[in-house]
Amino acid sequence: MCDQLRWDYLSCYGHPRLHTPHIDGLAARGVRFTRAYVQSPICGPARMSFYTGRYMHSHGSTWNGIPLKVGEMTMGDYLRPLGVKTALVGKTHMVADKEGMERLGIDPTSIIGVRVSECGFDPYERDDGLHARGPDGGYDARQQPRYNKYLLDKGYVGDNPWHDWANAAQGENNRLASGWAMRNARRPARVKEEDSETPYMTRRGIDFIREAGAAPWCLHLSYIKPHWPYIAPAPYNDMYSAADVIPPVRSQEERRNPHPLYREFMNYRVSRQFAREEVRNGVVPVYMGLVKQIDDQMGVLFRFLEDNGYFENTMIVFTSDHGDYLGDHWLGEKEFFHEPSVKIPLIIYDPSQAANATRGSVCDDLVESIDLAPTFLEFVGADPAQQSHRLEGRSLVPLLHGRRPPDWREFVVSEYDYSIQPAGAALGVEPRDARLFMLADKRWKYIHAIGFRPLLFDMATDPSEFRDLGADPACEAVRQRFAAELGRWGLRQSQRQTRSEQQVRAMRGRAERRGILIGVWDESDVADEYWRGYLGEER
Amino acid sequence: MCDQLRWDYLSCYGHPRLHTPHIDGLAARGVRFTRAYVQSPICGPARMSFYTGRYMHSHGSTWNGIPLKVGEMTMGDYLRPLGVKTALVGKTHMVADKEGMERLGIDPTSIIGVRVSECGFDPYERDDGLHARGPDGGYDARQQPRYNKYLLDKGYVGDNPWHDWANAAQGENNRLASGWAMRNARRPARVKEEDSETPYMTRRGIDFIREAGAAPWCLHLSYIKPHWPYIAPAPYNDMYSAADVIPPVRSQEERRNPHPLYREFMNYRVSRQFAREEVRNGVVPVYMGLVKQIDDQMGVLFRFLEDNGYFENTMIVFTSDHGDYLGDHWLGEKEFFHEPSVKIPLIIYDPSQAANATRGSVCDDLVESIDLAPTFLEFVGADPAQQSHRLEGRSLVPLLHGRRPPDWREFVVSEYDYSIQPAGAALGVEPRDARLFMLADKRWKYIHAIGFRPLLFDMATDPSEFRDLGADPACEAVRQRFAAELGRWGLRQSQRQTRSEQQVRAMRGRAERRGILIGVWDESDVADEYWRGYLGEER
Repeated sequence: MCDQLRWDYLSCYGHPRLHTPHIDGLAARGVRFTRAYVQSPICGPARMSFYTGRYMHSHGSTWNGIPLKVGEMTMGDYLRPLGVKTALVGKTHMVADKEGMERLGIDPTSIIGVRVSECGFDPYERDDGLHARGPDGGYDARQQPRYNKYLLDKGYVGDNPWHDWANAAQGENNRLASGWAMRNARRPARVKEEDSETPYMTRRGIDFIREAGAAPWCLHLSYIKPHWPYIAPAPYNDMYSAADVIPPVRSQEERRNPHPLYREFMNYRVSRQFAREEVRNGVVPVYMGLVKQIDDQMGVLFRFLEDNGYFENTMIVFTSDHGDYLGDHWLGEKEFFHEPSVKIPLIIYDPSQAANATRGSVCDDLVESIDLAPTFLEFVGADPAQQSHRLEGRSLVPLLHGRRPPDWREFVVSEYDYSIQPAGAALGVEPRDARLFMLADKRWKYIHAIGFRPLLFDMATDPSEFRDLGADPACEAVRQRFAAELGRWGLRQSQRQTRSEQQVRAMRGRAERRGILIGVWDESDVADEYWRGYLGEER
Repeated sequence: MCDQLRWDYLSCYGHPRLHTPHIDGLAARGVRFTRAYVQSPICGPARMSFYTGRYMHSHGSTWNGIPLKVGEMTMGDYLRPLGVKTALVGKTHMVADKEGMERLGIDPTSIIGVRVSECGFDPYERDDGLHARGPDGGYDARQQPRYNKYLLDKGYVGDNPWHDWANAAQGENNRLASGWAMRNARRPARVKEEDSETPYMTRRGIDFIREAGAAPWCLHLSYIKPHWPYIAPAPYNDMYSAADVIPPVRSQEERRNPHPLYREFMNYRVSRQFAREEVRNGVVPVYMGLVKQIDDQMGVLFRFLEDNGYFENTMIVFTSDHGDYLGDHWLGEKEFFHEPSVKIPLIIYDPSQAANATRGSVCDDLVESIDLAPTFLEFVGADPAQQSHRLEGRSLVPLLHGRRPPDWREFVVSEYDYSIQPAGAALGVEPRDARLFMLADKRWKYIHAIGFRPLLFDMATDPSEFRDLGADPACEAVRQRFAAELGRWGLRQSQRQTRSEQQVRAMRGRAERRGILIGVWDESDVADEYWRGYLGEER
């Protein structure tokens, strides 16, 4: 998993200037999904959906830093009992529910406590890759990353080599030029390429696989790049230039009388920056370089897997937690629902014979990030249907085997909670109401904003999503259809997590068999011999 | 709390033949609510809503025997940290989430484990009062009640004195006449009145209060009666006769082309039984006798509280977990949404000075059972708003003090999951779709049935709820209004339980203060002195 990698910045997804042969090679051996969406276009909530297989509305981790509550099951909780060692190398953006653990007497340092704190993974190398510092202190107080120790051992001195070497360049007059300032994007990071984050994490992933041996395992190899800070080591910092930057997908039409929320997002500092050519020409080439570095590292990883025979028995998924606007639609970052933000690259290699029919094929069915957990369950031989009371996604294995279920989903859902963002304060919206819901099928994208009119895009006639039809009288019927669909979705059963559909069916009639006789007048009302003579009548 | 006590079977609520002076006396000193609704008209889910302060759709314990998942906070979790000992005497119908506790390494025998298994209460005397046995064994395998030991010590021999003495009469030829058979209802239970369940639990409640001493406490004194089995000890078994039975509220109009679900409920054995006069005349007088016995025991309890000065500092709530159709609307039991089932008696005595203005008054505002948890929090001096991310109810204290908030709720919500009931199987509805949602304001009652047309009652023109307007074209606008309201309700934020509204507001802008600079080009984009010289520029 990459962080903030747009779906379309890979050559197999059609980027004209960014050549990613290793990732393309995986697509050639697997299935490439063209309509894969995340459940929230921001790191934390999106990842909690990947890990729990549940919508944000169900798992409740609604923004970065909102802890995933104790009790929410994750991939590891499902896979570990099946004998699959489930481990993490890299980022999760998970914050532990310390209060909940304390209330339940769970020691955070116990094996269970650590797994609860790491979304159910065994942390082989947990590193969220955001070791920033500011006037109020460090962003990720949770940990001092092993990566910093690695850099120190390599002679990169300082109290935070992650920033000073891997994410900063040399500034004027021996001053640091932090990667947090986009003006420095094109400068080379001070660290040697082999010591930068992406190759380091690849090596750590390979270390884990080596150590894991023959026992089944599931590795979440999770890269921070091409996420901020936008800075790359040589040679990736100037591998691409302004000439390689594809034009932004935006139109003056979008700025005319925009939806109040969209207007607020366009007013964000990051959006205003990416409206400037200087910024795009400075940042996008480096973003491309960071993706290129990831592709090269995929080459290293795949070669290791090939040389050691792992392609014969290992499912490989390449994806991202969300995209990056990079100036499209007059926005920067992610956090809204245009395709560059909410759609992700998703490539799945399934080693099984049954998948031979689909190798190198493209799947345009509607897919959600919550589908991966049930996919892994089915891949290791379990029946995801037994978990349908908890897992809200659907296994992709049938699609990987070319057996598309006739009842496949007709729309995807994504959510965003802007209560912590400036828009929430600027519009004076209460946190509990600062929420957006996107429903999209293969043609329409409908965005429900509590307290505002909806947004609507027709991706068939307006594939660039320039025309918001949210107030167009001609689309009233479409909006009503999606509003009704969203209402049904909201009422779905997502919290009966202690009993499955099968267990519920098995409960039918059980109470009477255990003596709870409701509506019995006399023995003639109960068939079982057990009751004879028990209810007061003569035999 | 009583179990299955109808709102209108008390003289203060207008019953013409059943005189309940002690409960009426509490109403004379407190506030009597006329529009109090449970969140689900069945024991388990209703109680889990009382205890968690959350809708069934949020806590997920959707039927009797569906465990409340580990992590759902309850009254005890809120009150105990405030120094309030929170204890249980009697019934909860709670089933522990054993699987969840095991997954999280919580020892069920530890103090925390026991509280997790008892909805957060310290079990002073846990007794669900349904120690039935059948061909498949006991209904409540969890425990052998102390009450059985009490009866044995008193000389009531047998392996299940609860049934054989407290819930059975003497049958013909020395045979037992089980209370589970309604034909035996009018016979006296074999146990002496003082040894029957209701007085026993009253004494146990008083024992707890005596032992608790001066420290703050919250006691959930929870009676099984007048719930099944319908059988009472002398003299309560024949204190009332068929002459005291008020006529059933039902109309032939209801049987003409009824809603498919309502038809199924009318076809239940218990409903067909209560359509018979013989059954009503046999059962209702005993039901009344059991209520009368509870009123007498309230007299015992209140006298104790009075004699020991507790009325000066103790909030006293008298209520029930749901009602009982007793043949109204051609139904028995509860589990549907007519007033006899979903409305409950609710009387609250608040000792504080501020409540003097409302003593003896009647409140017809819309109230839900989930309002009690926040009410208790406010009564002990905490601010329920700090828990609004978890508690979905509203404190009733303002109403008790005659300060009705202008923004008080405009409708109540109740739910019922019939997936385990015969209707689910008969109509071939998948468990996940076998769910009903009731929305009611002061005039309309709207019932949404997934996969079916809704039901609608106009309680202004049809107070008896005889005319289902769910298909009446004249009411289309009303149905659409409630459908939209239900859609909004379904999207409410109920799972962000790890951070409060206040904490979310406090998170605004925090990331940048900790070094996550998003959208910064150079130092001119950041105000704080901290960044000077850090981003690569000359000073």
